[in-house]
Amino acid sequence: MAAEDNMKKPRLAVVGASGAVGRKVLDVIEVRDFPFTSIDLLTSERSAGMWVSVRGERTQYKKLTKESFDGVDIAIFDVPDEVSAEYVPFARDAGCIAVDNSGAFRMYRNVPLVVPEINAYALKGHRGIVANPNCTTAITLMALAPLHDRFGIKQVKVTTFQAVSGAGQAGVDELERQVNEWKQGAELTTKAFPHPIFGNVIPQVGSFLPSGYTTEEEKLRREGAKILDLPELRISARCVRAPVFTAHSIDVMAVFEDRITAAEARACLEQARGIDVIDDPDQSEYPMPLNATGKYNCKVGGIRKDCAFDNAISLFVSGDQLLKGAALNAVQIAELLIK
Amino acid sequence: MAAEDNMKKPRLAVVGASGAVGRKVLDVIEVRDFPFTSIDLLTSERSAGMWVSVRGERTQYKKLTKESFDGVDIAIFDVPDEVSAEYVPFARDAGCIAVDNSGAFRMYRNVPLVVPEINAYALKGHRGIVANPNCTTAITLMALAPLHDRFGIKQVKVTTFQAVSGAGQAGVDELERQVNEWKQGAELTTKAFPHPIFGNVIPQVGSFLPSGYTTEEEKLRREGAKILDLPELRISARCVRAPVFTAHSIDVMAVFEDRITAAEARACLEQARGIDVIDDPDQSEYPMPLNATGKYNCKVGGIRKDCAFDNAISLFVSGDQLLKGAALNAVQIAELLIK
Repeated sequence: MAAEDNMKKPRLAVVGASGAVGRKVLDVIEVRDFPFTSIDLLTSERSAGMWVSVRGERTQYKKLTKESFDGVDIAIFDVPDEVSAEYVPFARDAGCIAVDNSGAFRMYRNVPLVVPEINAYALKGHRGIVANPNCTTAITLMALAPLHDRFGIKQVKVTTFQAVSGAGQAGVDELERQVNEWKQGAELTTKAFPHPIFGNVIPQVGSFLPSGYTTEEEKLRREGAKILDLPELRISARCVRAPVFTAHSIDVMAVFEDRITAAEARACLEQARGIDVIDDPDQSEYPMPLNATGKYNCKVGGIRKDCAFDNAISLFVSGDQLLKGAALNAVQIAELLIK
Repeated sequence: MAAEDNMKKPRLAVVGASGAVGRKVLDVIEVRDFPFTSIDLLTSERSAGMWVSVRGERTQYKKLTKESFDGVDIAIFDVPDEVSAEYVPFARDAGCIAVDNSGAFRMYRNVPLVVPEINAYALKGHRGIVANPNCTTAITLMALAPLHDRFGIKQVKVTTFQAVSGAGQAGVDELERQVNEWKQGAELTTKAFPHPIFGNVIPQVGSFLPSGYTTEEEKLRREGAKILDLPELRISARCVRAPVFTAHSIDVMAVFEDRITAAEARACLEQARGIDVIDDPDQSEYPMPLNATGKYNCKVGGIRKDCAFDNAISLFVSGDQLLKGAALNAVQIAELLIK
């Protein structure tokens, strides 16, 4: 078979297949019926050897090594930055295209950073590595990009409500454990987060930079600028961890170059792909973690003309950060690669 | 005794003394050693007749009636709007000064709306009714007013994380019940809020107005304008209920008339009364519900020059909405009245 034919039904690998995002990737591949000739589930030594079912077939986790990518066409990486930094180049050098969910390569000039609904064109000219944006970036941009296309973003202020699963299974375990501790009247113990998250909100996601902003807040700015191809994008974020299991919510206030009304913004968003407008305040219908969890589309609502800034729109977006913020977006990129 | 002497050690009444805020008022009176000759604890018929301890003395709840205010100098009202609307005028007509925590009279031209650290001067010329602002307004302004005094507010965007106790005991009961339901794997039932609050955030506090903003968001704008004596105050809020028991947190981004740096803002806030600056990100120290709960002072931190708006500061404030947002502020007003 020629390489081109291989890409219609590629030999696939999922790196970090036993993790929270890796497992979601396998779900999404199944639901969307992503075609493949073979699939390798690569994990750390700890999980290697265990068996799982993929599309009804018993499949064994294999230990990730430098040689894992021989004969693989596309590898989706769902591992920490340092693991991607080490293994993604082995994949590329073996002629495999790496779709990387980590932050290791996102800002490299030759690495496209892609949200398929927004900048699929950027995939062209990739050199074997394609990066998936940070979850908060992807979800925020799903609401902002369609408005930018039509009205031109000038300045953006966002405040996030981020789910504990954004910190992986450890974050989920922490909230569950603290619920139990609280029930027992015990002191809340902390491991995953710097402070208790049950009954609290923590205005820190990532670590603080000299600017006073956090790494998470800075990612939104830099990745947003790259994806929208707006190098000078002015976006200021406050990222806050909330006691929510899944789905990030983001309050967005954006000032545009052009005049804009709430009705125009709503009409524009209703036509956009990958989002559902939920905006019936009289019926108490708006985006929330509970109606975004498990959903492929991000939910956008609470759309109104901002009363304090001119040419500005205020809206609220909720999205499953394990799906559009990670697994779904990565599989969508892979779908573009095999087109 | 002359009326003036009465006011040094007034005959006091607390209306709604058995409610969440009323009980806090009794705590604050005790802690701050507020002087009084006598104290009447007025409640609905349901609680009347029960005994409680006030400053070590057994005191009986009395049923609130039109005649409750004969011989009372100051009455602190902690009851729903409609109860205040009915009974505050009886207090005023009996020559008593009503300090009202409800929203019934806040926007009346002849009713001062007071946060003692900000606009104590407004008390002058009251006509028997003084209003206490909405909790979110009070806490937000504790951080904004000192900056406004020095740098001049131009525009403000805020996003709130509001505690369930802002909706009274019913809100607390709801979160506790939903924790139990979740533990048992049962469906989460809702009474106090339109959606489950455990594991969720709800971008609705109050009810929606035709503008698309909620009553809570509109209160912040209108009350803020009155307290700061800035009729055209441009402040846009998104008020969100979070699964937090006590203390509201508010992400504030304010654009000023004058040039401002983060260091100047911090220095200004460090000198302000009624707030504590907690702002050591490297040590993960910043305001949170957990470090504001039960505290008289509001906590302000996360202070930084905004990276998207010129002459703008971004900060995070947490405050106990039952204290500075209600009971404490009311007792502080009473303290000014007896000075």
